Amino acid sequence: MRARTVQRAPDPYASRRGGAFGLAERPDPVVWGAGAGPLDASELARYERDGFLSVMDLLPASRAAGLRAEAHRLRAAARPDAEAVVIEPDSDVVRSVFQVHERSEAFARVIRHPRLLAIAHQILGSPVYLHQSRINFKPALDGREFFWHSDFETWHVEDGMPRPRAFSVSLALTDNHEFNGPLIVVPGSHRAYLRCPGGTPREHHRESLRRQRYGVPDRASLRRLMAGRGLVAPKGRAGSAVIFDANLMHASAGNLSPEDRVNLFLVYNSVENRLEAPFSELPPRPAFLAARAVCPLEAEA
Amino acid sequence: MRARTVQRAPDPYASRRGGAFGLAERPDPVVWGAGAGPLDASELARYERDGFLSVMDLLPASRAAGLRAEAHRLRAAARPDAEAVVIEPDSDVVRSVFQVHERSEAFARVIRHPRLLAIAHQILGSPVYLHQSRINFKPALDGREFFWHSDFETWHVEDGMPRPRAFSVSLALTDNHEFNGPLIVVPGSHRAYLRCPGGTPREHHRESLRRQRYGVPDRASLRRLMAGRGLVAPKGRAGSAVIFDANLMHASAGNLSPEDRVNLFLVYNSVENRLEAPFSELPPRPAFLAARAVCPLEAEA
Repeated sequence: MRARTVQRAPDPYASRRGGAFGLAERPDPVVWGAGAGPLDASELARYERDGFLSVMDLLPASRAAGLRAEAHRLRAAARPDAEAVVIEPDSDVVRSVFQVHERSEAFARVIRHPRLLAIAHQILGSPVYLHQSRINFKPALDGREFFWHSDFETWHVEDGMPRPRAFSVSLALTDNHEFNGPLIVVPGSHRAYLRCPGGTPREHHRESLRRQRYGVPDRASLRRLMAGRGLVAPKGRAGSAVIFDANLMHASAGNLSPEDRVNLFLVYNSVENRLEAPFSELPPRPAFLAARAVCPLEAEA
Repeated sequence: MRARTVQRAPDPYASRRGGAFGLAERPDPVVWGAGAGPLDASELARYERDGFLSVMDLLPASRAAGLRAEAHRLRAAARPDAEAVVIEPDSDVVRSVFQVHERSEAFARVIRHPRLLAIAHQILGSPVYLHQSRINFKPALDGREFFWHSDFETWHVEDGMPRPRAFSVSLALTDNHEFNGPLIVVPGSHRAYLRCPGGTPREHHRESLRRQRYGVPDRASLRRLMAGRGLVAPKGRAGSAVIFDANLMHASAGNLSPEDRVNLFLVYNSVENRLEAPFSELPPRPAFLAARAVCPLEAEA
């Protein structure tokens, strides 16, 4: 981690800096690689344009079922007060368990899935490492809404990720359907950048992972970003995945169904986009939220 | 309003009475009339079985647009601290305006819509009056979730409605779609009754209309009620309506879309089911929530 110096260049992704907020340019590309890979030209063009891509049946149902069982085991073993365990805002139900690839052989293996890594190389144009892993449980009845946000805004301000040269994978371990709070995205929103109002309080992440209050877009800019773009919920059965740009505006409703919605969430970052000091006055968040050690991933055998 | 006496019969719909909660029988019918009406035999059978019915295009688009404009006018005129105005839990945005048929000629007329009243007579088997009217705004981005509940449970405990011989109409004044928090129902759930745990604090309704904490089913009973029934979101464009039994378990997610979802909500009660003293220790809620004067409705000319 390089020390923060006064020479730091002007930040195109400054956010939560008091006065200036609202829509800004994204000076960086979406697709960083030029080479071939598992995505054909039309898929790659769609990812570039929309900021996301559904990968149906990335894993066979049996492997998804095995990972789901493993997720339930991790949840049962989770101490609610443990650092890497997050509880729902209005109940004592586990919402997320972080760093699951460090806690389980099965998850350590799936992060090195050959197709995922090949897509990552193709889009990000370099080897990649894992910025974050977590299971989002969105528990039956009690799983609450996630409001609109860009993950990159948080990773930039709070973790020091310099550029949006990263993407997320949301891998369904249960079916994701209309009633259990599937991911909702604003297609094309990744090509703008939304500076948020306000600042960031210290130790913000303890609260923000339960209910976000900072790094939340102002309503007027959000409406401008959404205008004419529509909304899409890329649903899918267990084993399917959605990959989406680090800066794509996304949200999800609560889970009103009587069954948990369990997704594995992985963030791949380019090894050429390693974390610096956070783009704020605060110390970086802990490693379970943002890996600072860069270990390039190699595909599982 | 009859005074509460010690001779009051045992209450089949007792709820929030301390120890006893969970699933119970509904001793009353769903369809109270035997006569003909606008619903054909299969529609009536479906209403009896599922507890709800979609009425597509009850109003032409132009009349829905007129009512929508009227709703916006009422909202603009609403004082946030007025009794019949309810604000969203996490913001200062208007969530509901009650007793709209008293505030507007257009709404006073639509509650006497001939087809609605004819359906009401057919289902409830008697003349009807209006128990409650309101506009639910579910404002863009800030409109929050309504958790699972039976309206009748509240009307019984807090208003003194003796029997579930009433139904609601949710009339779309804007399109209701996947992303703006449409009504979600548990088909068939109206044929059981779910006694809720806990009690009812005094002046509860000031808070409950923003975020419900009492009259909320316990999770285990709710799961039992939902088991095998599935979920349905009867969406529809502006001018369409959903009519549903007073005791149907229903909910809705937040509105994550950038446009308000505006619905007119009407409750028709049989004149033979007039309110008594509340089935609790509390005084009745105010008239803007539960009309105590019974004025049988006649169809508009």
